[in-house]
Amino acid sequence: MSALSSRTVSAAEAAAHISPGDRVGMSGFTGAGYPKAVPEALADRVEQAHQRGEEFRIELWTGASTAPEVDGLLTEAGAVSKRLPFQSDPTARQAINAGEIEYIDTHLSHSAQQAWFGFYGKLDVAVVEVAGILPNGLLVPGSSVGNSKTWLDLAEKVILEVNSWHPRAYEGFHDIYYGTRLPPQRMPLQLLDPMQRIGDPYLRVDPAKVVAVVQTEAPDRNLPFKPVDPDSQAMADHVVDFLHHEVARDRLPKGLFPLQSGVGNIANAVMTNLAHSQFEDLTAYTEVIQDGMLELLDSGKLAAASATSLCLSAQKAEHFNENIESYKGRILLRPQEISNHPEVIRRLGLIAINGMIEADIYGNVNSTHVMASSIINGIGGSGDFARNAYLNFFVSPSTAKDGMISAIVPFASHIDHTEHDTQILVTEQGLADLRGLSPMARARSIIRNCAHPHYRDRLQDYLDRACAANPGGRHTPHLLGEALSWHQAFQHTGRM
Amino acid sequence: MSALSSRTVSAAEAAAHISPGDRVGMSGFTGAGYPKAVPEALADRVEQAHQRGEEFRIELWTGASTAPEVDGLLTEAGAVSKRLPFQSDPTARQAINAGEIEYIDTHLSHSAQQAWFGFYGKLDVAVVEVAGILPNGLLVPGSSVGNSKTWLDLAEKVILEVNSWHPRAYEGFHDIYYGTRLPPQRMPLQLLDPMQRIGDPYLRVDPAKVVAVVQTEAPDRNLPFKPVDPDSQAMADHVVDFLHHEVARDRLPKGLFPLQSGVGNIANAVMTNLAHSQFEDLTAYTEVIQDGMLELLDSGKLAAASATSLCLSAQKAEHFNENIESYKGRILLRPQEISNHPEVIRRLGLIAINGMIEADIYGNVNSTHVMASSIINGIGGSGDFARNAYLNFFVSPSTAKDGMISAIVPFASHIDHTEHDTQILVTEQGLADLRGLSPMARARSIIRNCAHPHYRDRLQDYLDRACAANPGGRHTPHLLGEALSWHQAFQHTGRM
Repeated sequence: MSALSSRTVSAAEAAAHISPGDRVGMSGFTGAGYPKAVPEALADRVEQAHQRGEEFRIELWTGASTAPEVDGLLTEAGAVSKRLPFQSDPTARQAINAGEIEYIDTHLSHSAQQAWFGFYGKLDVAVVEVAGILPNGLLVPGSSVGNSKTWLDLAEKVILEVNSWHPRAYEGFHDIYYGTRLPPQRMPLQLLDPMQRIGDPYLRVDPAKVVAVVQTEAPDRNLPFKPVDPDSQAMADHVVDFLHHEVARDRLPKGLFPLQSGVGNIANAVMTNLAHSQFEDLTAYTEVIQDGMLELLDSGKLAAASATSLCLSAQKAEHFNENIESYKGRILLRPQEISNHPEVIRRLGLIAINGMIEADIYGNVNSTHVMASSIINGIGGSGDFARNAYLNFFVSPSTAKDGMISAIVPFASHIDHTEHDTQILVTEQGLADLRGLSPMARARSIIRNCAHPHYRDRLQDYLDRACAANPGGRHTPHLLGEALSWHQAFQHTGRM
Repeated sequence: MSALSSRTVSAAEAAAHISPGDRVGMSGFTGAGYPKAVPEALADRVEQAHQRGEEFRIELWTGASTAPEVDGLLTEAGAVSKRLPFQSDPTARQAINAGEIEYIDTHLSHSAQQAWFGFYGKLDVAVVEVAGILPNGLLVPGSSVGNSKTWLDLAEKVILEVNSWHPRAYEGFHDIYYGTRLPPQRMPLQLLDPMQRIGDPYLRVDPAKVVAVVQTEAPDRNLPFKPVDPDSQAMADHVVDFLHHEVARDRLPKGLFPLQSGVGNIANAVMTNLAHSQFEDLTAYTEVIQDGMLELLDSGKLAAASATSLCLSAQKAEHFNENIESYKGRILLRPQEISNHPEVIRRLGLIAINGMIEADIYGNVNSTHVMASSIINGIGGSGDFARNAYLNFFVSPSTAKDGMISAIVPFASHIDHTEHDTQILVTEQGLADLRGLSPMARARSIIRNCAHPHYRDRLQDYLDRACAANPGGRHTPHLLGEALSWHQAFQHTGRM
């Protein structure tokens, strides 16, 4: 029993340490390792204050997305004024799109350093979930690391949630780098291999800052993944075929380079597909380990994986927790400033696979918005990985809304990844390899290989007419009056 | 006299080693250190072939922009099929925008590694200008390094131009890193300080590959900079005031962090302005050293500067060449894969200052295109620096074409730097600090601080109506039918 454990209180008592206007840094990344009790108690506290006619809103900083118990409840209580650096909660999304919450959509590798730089202001309280507290006060993290290290370091007050749902055997699964410095004291990250340890297995906290410890026993969000449908299967096939193609041309070694796979069903399907490939001794250096990657580890195809979070279905989470010892030494969870660090991503030469909402004919990719104005989730780590990877893939079905929306459009209604950064686009229709191509050659390849046949001729017609209309602008020809007309048509008629 | 010098031939004889369809890697970066004789001889050779009815086109790879003697003459001869990674020649620009040259507009930190990865195909010939050849065969580079190291390593055949206009005292001004490896053999760059040497003062070449050596004596392009006009002065004042502001808030040290300053008049004006600031012991880690930065070195304000190229007016180039010994140890020229390396930029915590063509109200920046379709120059290193810097500034006058064009628009007609990457926008009107702001707060700040008064109310009106029209899309509200209408209006009426 540690000295810290003697500070155990109820969630309500812990939440009383959070004041109106506070900036609160919570643990949690893709529905894993977020606090389970204090946010709900805080939501109650805020609702009571609002009923008394008092102002009570906080800024909410996390690792990435959390769960209904955090973003959902706090949003419903009207408790959040500002949110960063990523979220994916439906209730919070609605509030953001209603203009009620200011949302700062940041590259996940930037969030910790920008907090250290003071760009977001001073952090008042950290609320961090852990799997255990050692007698000496060191903290054993659970299913995610995210920004927990940074929030523990920066916050004036710390609230810990000890969740006994996380197996105590999580000890040894984490590598918390404590070498982060501000310029000009920064040093190279001596990380040469996905599984290399450069830090400690524990999070540290100044005991003097710990104002409350709360005991919980509650599972992570653990939503199911969709079964692999024919479209996802086709996209996964295109990606795996292409990797074979690159190996055959000596542009990739037989065991590939470390894989990064984004959050969601399609990236999950690609990982599942790799289980049936001929590749051996794969490694991963990624943000999240989803079901497909855990299966790859189980099959032995994937030797080891570094990430910042587990993002598993309830079934896989149970499987993981029951067999946790068998994964030790094969899974390493790091702070997101390290899992997503440009320096490491570029050095290791990652193969990055991320989803997209739409791409334009020149390969500019929209990862965040629908019809220009409304945000879905956020850019997450896709920019960290795409910009610095050896190879990057952006993957989406060629249509959405039963074919009413084309994922390939004349002009992307929001751009998160520019033509300078995107290399390979994949839909169920096929794959466009854009490396070393001019914009016009990119357009021809994307239209031919990625667009749905229903939209292909119209896209080609747009390109042809844009070319004809711009005799002095045939580098990236556009028709300004039509560039966003497909999105407009959808808004007015429900179809592009 | 080295063994290599015995291979001295005429430029025409050297150019005979270049065949139709070859990929040719030439030295040169921002009009410095490009070959002066072989390109002209090659252009003659191509023209003669064309007169005989023969096909003769090459792919032209460089460091960055060259000069009329390279891009101009080769374009006029119809000699270029593909061009990368950056150029700024008016003749070449016209050919690119006419669809006659395929232009691959690449982050400058990506070009060397993507060539190594094999993404552009095999390099046939390197044509590299140097200041001298040592008896042992080592090469003393001149006024730029750019991609010369990579082209010398990769090319099957090498042609050297020894330009005696470059002082022989260039020896010792360069740091050529020979530790670059392909994944998984990559190691951390042990570069902790802008002036730290991690390589050799010389370029290496396999003597067996050297098919020709050509002697020249010709100056670099050395175009004059525009005198600092009131708008540039105002922008420079805003930047310097802001840096003082950040120092006062303890977010920057008194000597700042290493400066990066983009190519062009405005970035040059900012450097000139710093000469009259109270900052001392400044350093630079940048792509190019322009006149303003040389003056800062002369004044002692700037202790030292690392770059990949000198980009000086004729007057300053003469001054530099005459006083070259006084700059030794205070200027270091590196390969562009190091000067622009994300790992180093992030570690050193750069202050990056780059020009832009336009920004939209949410802070997406267009650095490359006018009216969507026509490219001006290219992204250059602006993405390398902006994404990885501690602080980034994008700078432009608030209007162009005598006020007919607003540099702040509802929706950027091309996006090179997304909202996730841009921090501080500056026009002569003022400065918008976008750090930690939601898109709506960014828009209010940009419209209020950066837009020209003539356009301010219309931008605010667009924002207000976009907000009203999108009750479920108030994160980044847009009116799709109007988003590009300002550009359309300019196309139709000559004014926005």
